[in-house]
Amino acid sequence: MTPVEAPVAPATLDAVAALAELACIGRDDARGGWSRHLLDEADGEMRAWFARTAAALGLAVETDANANQWATWAPDGATGPAVGTGSHLDSVPGGGPLDGPLGVVSALAAVSRLMAEGHAPSRPVRIANFAEEEGARFGVPCLGSQLLAGDIDTHRVRALTDGSGASVAEVLASAGLDPEAIGRDDARLADLALYLELHVEQGRQLAPLGVPVGVATGILAHGRWRVTVTGRGDHAGATELGSRRDPMLVAAAVIRAARNRAAGANPATRARATVGKLQVVPGGSNAIASEVRLWLDARAEHDADVHDLVARILSDAEAVAREEGCEVAVAEESFSTRVEFDATLTDLVDSALGGVPRIPTGAGHDAGILAAHLPTAMMFVRNPDGVSHSPLECASDADIRAGVDALADALRALT
Amino acid sequence: MTPVEAPVAPATLDAVAALAELACIGRDDARGGWSRHLLDEADGEMRAWFARTAAALGLAVETDANANQWATWAPDGATGPAVGTGSHLDSVPGGGPLDGPLGVVSALAAVSRLMAEGHAPSRPVRIANFAEEEGARFGVPCLGSQLLAGDIDTHRVRALTDGSGASVAEVLASAGLDPEAIGRDDARLADLALYLELHVEQGRQLAPLGVPVGVATGILAHGRWRVTVTGRGDHAGATELGSRRDPMLVAAAVIRAARNRAAGANPATRARATVGKLQVVPGGSNAIASEVRLWLDARAEHDADVHDLVARILSDAEAVAREEGCEVAVAEESFSTRVEFDATLTDLVDSALGGVPRIPTGAGHDAGILAAHLPTAMMFVRNPDGVSHSPLECASDADIRAGVDALADALRALT
Repeated sequence: MTPVEAPVAPATLDAVAALAELACIGRDDARGGWSRHLLDEADGEMRAWFARTAAALGLAVETDANANQWATWAPDGATGPAVGTGSHLDSVPGGGPLDGPLGVVSALAAVSRLMAEGHAPSRPVRIANFAEEEGARFGVPCLGSQLLAGDIDTHRVRALTDGSGASVAEVLASAGLDPEAIGRDDARLADLALYLELHVEQGRQLAPLGVPVGVATGILAHGRWRVTVTGRGDHAGATELGSRRDPMLVAAAVIRAARNRAAGANPATRARATVGKLQVVPGGSNAIASEVRLWLDARAEHDADVHDLVARILSDAEAVAREEGCEVAVAEESFSTRVEFDATLTDLVDSALGGVPRIPTGAGHDAGILAAHLPTAMMFVRNPDGVSHSPLECASDADIRAGVDALADALRALT
Repeated sequence: MTPVEAPVAPATLDAVAALAELACIGRDDARGGWSRHLLDEADGEMRAWFARTAAALGLAVETDANANQWATWAPDGATGPAVGTGSHLDSVPGGGPLDGPLGVVSALAAVSRLMAEGHAPSRPVRIANFAEEEGARFGVPCLGSQLLAGDIDTHRVRALTDGSGASVAEVLASAGLDPEAIGRDDARLADLALYLELHVEQGRQLAPLGVPVGVATGILAHGRWRVTVTGRGDHAGATELGSRRDPMLVAAAVIRAARNRAAGANPATRARATVGKLQVVPGGSNAIASEVRLWLDARAEHDADVHDLVARILSDAEAVAREEGCEVAVAEESFSTRVEFDATLTDLVDSALGGVPRIPTGAGHDAGILAAHLPTAMMFVRNPDGVSHSPLECASDADIRAGVDALADALRALT
């Protein structure tokens, strides 16, 4: 005989256990790590996990018109605009386990902690899973938060296509969302009093300081440029060196110049430039390429520093292109201006945590998008090697739990 | 009432018209040009065209155990080992229209000409369409001729896989061929007295001389090396320059060194080196790569020149790898020793053509494989820009017809 059990209040969510559960979703056997891109199978499983887990905690779950998921804790007595927190569940191709599931999982864990301890919030707490933060499927980072904030043209977004030619409009429609409904969501923005995002540290600034959690000062200005080099396809064996127009040599010059020009910049600008994606046409081992497409990622403290850095890199590439008889075409795919997080909110979080290090970040975040619209702050959890956007990305279990503690402390203070 | 027509002798095949027909098969919309790889849909259509066209000319068509096609003209009085000619119908990815269909089509056209003029050959003429000459699907060039000649291990060949993971064994079996039957074919080799291949010129040596057809002296020694550079995947924005281990910088060094070291070699060695294929893992625009795989193609007059060239290139790459904290692993995927074509046969062809220029070639060919087993020679048809392995590869209609004339003259003299 099975005894009839009384309903049990949901247990407090353990962030480490929850991350172990998510580690089974979207493994990328080809690249290593995890690949979860907007509304693909893996992202769908992540989103289902978010809805199921939040609902089990007693939170109200909804998906907004821009494919962002929200889980709201609004018990009696919680009134007015909400305290927003969360992050994203998508990844770069072959990414690590923590960017950004750590922020979503920590938010759920922190809220479950506050519920379990009987905290009565004065304001609702709303946990976000922002859509396509990495821009890995459609090429535009922070797509969900940019749409929500009205920062991006919706006609352009609907027409963006992925590697297989599927458009954002088609992908949204097949997930049951209305592609015509995307764009600025004033009601939802007005219902957020502030946004506090917890994220795994990217870079290695906390480890030398010996502390598990820090707060962000701001986000470096950053952008992405698509560089298309056109040469002349030819036979690798039969073509004399003097009659080659090989775009690979220009691509090599961009890669080299990205490092040299960033290293040669004023250190105060924290300049960095990277080529991490490159495609060769036709790509035969015995064929001189006819075209090379590569993507230049450049970042620095201020907008002008980035523009100056990119101009120097492209000027080096142009010199090689002229020598080689190749053409270079450049398109700015995205540019994110320098972000300063809200000083008052950051001070408040900092004092709730008892005083922690303040560090800048070179990575873009949904919090950076929202910073132009509402008070926003970020917290970072120590990354022992500083590695991110890689399967090697990690944080210790103790630090993950310290991050949840810190986020719970901050949310308690803010509500 | 439809009149009953008497059977008509097949018309002489026009090479220009036949090439126009083939231009409809295997167009590559993504890369431009044509992509026809061993037993894929496009190659299947090319092979069907060969069988249909040869049969319409009254030739006996067969496929050997190594997937090479043969069309034989053996009228009464033609006895003993055959005169072989032909080329291949597969292509590099996004290749041109002539490498190697020109040789196959010209052979069919030349034989149809000899038939039409009532030439009575003393020996059979056998036209080959060699399988997978470019090695584009399974990575091994001249696969069909190497198998025929017994130059390559059949266990290794059966296990080779294409980009989708399909093995040679599987692909042969699904085309109705027996994977266990591949390998050295003594009977077929013994039945070839010599082999004469016509090919579009690759490089630009005939144009300045103002003549449409030349004969080959030899093939440069050449090889292909797969270079795998391992670094550490990381975040492109957050990782300080000093803590990066970016394999793209080493890849850029290989590309640059390939050009510099070839240009710096003794001009008499005709050294050339190329990187035409490169893959980035994970390949995200905001991720420092964890690994880059690239293929180095190197050629020069003599084997030792090639080995010296590759050693210098890799030494430059190693220096950058040490600076950057990356590892470099190198695998020789193929090496083809210097080939000298048969002097007696070449003199015979040359005098049949009334004396033409003699030029070396940097490209590998099935004729180069067969040269170790039987007397072999090659003829080249002028390429006005020298461009090959590219959609821009071309020859004028007049030169294509001059090539057929020359091949018919040579075959007449040899039979």
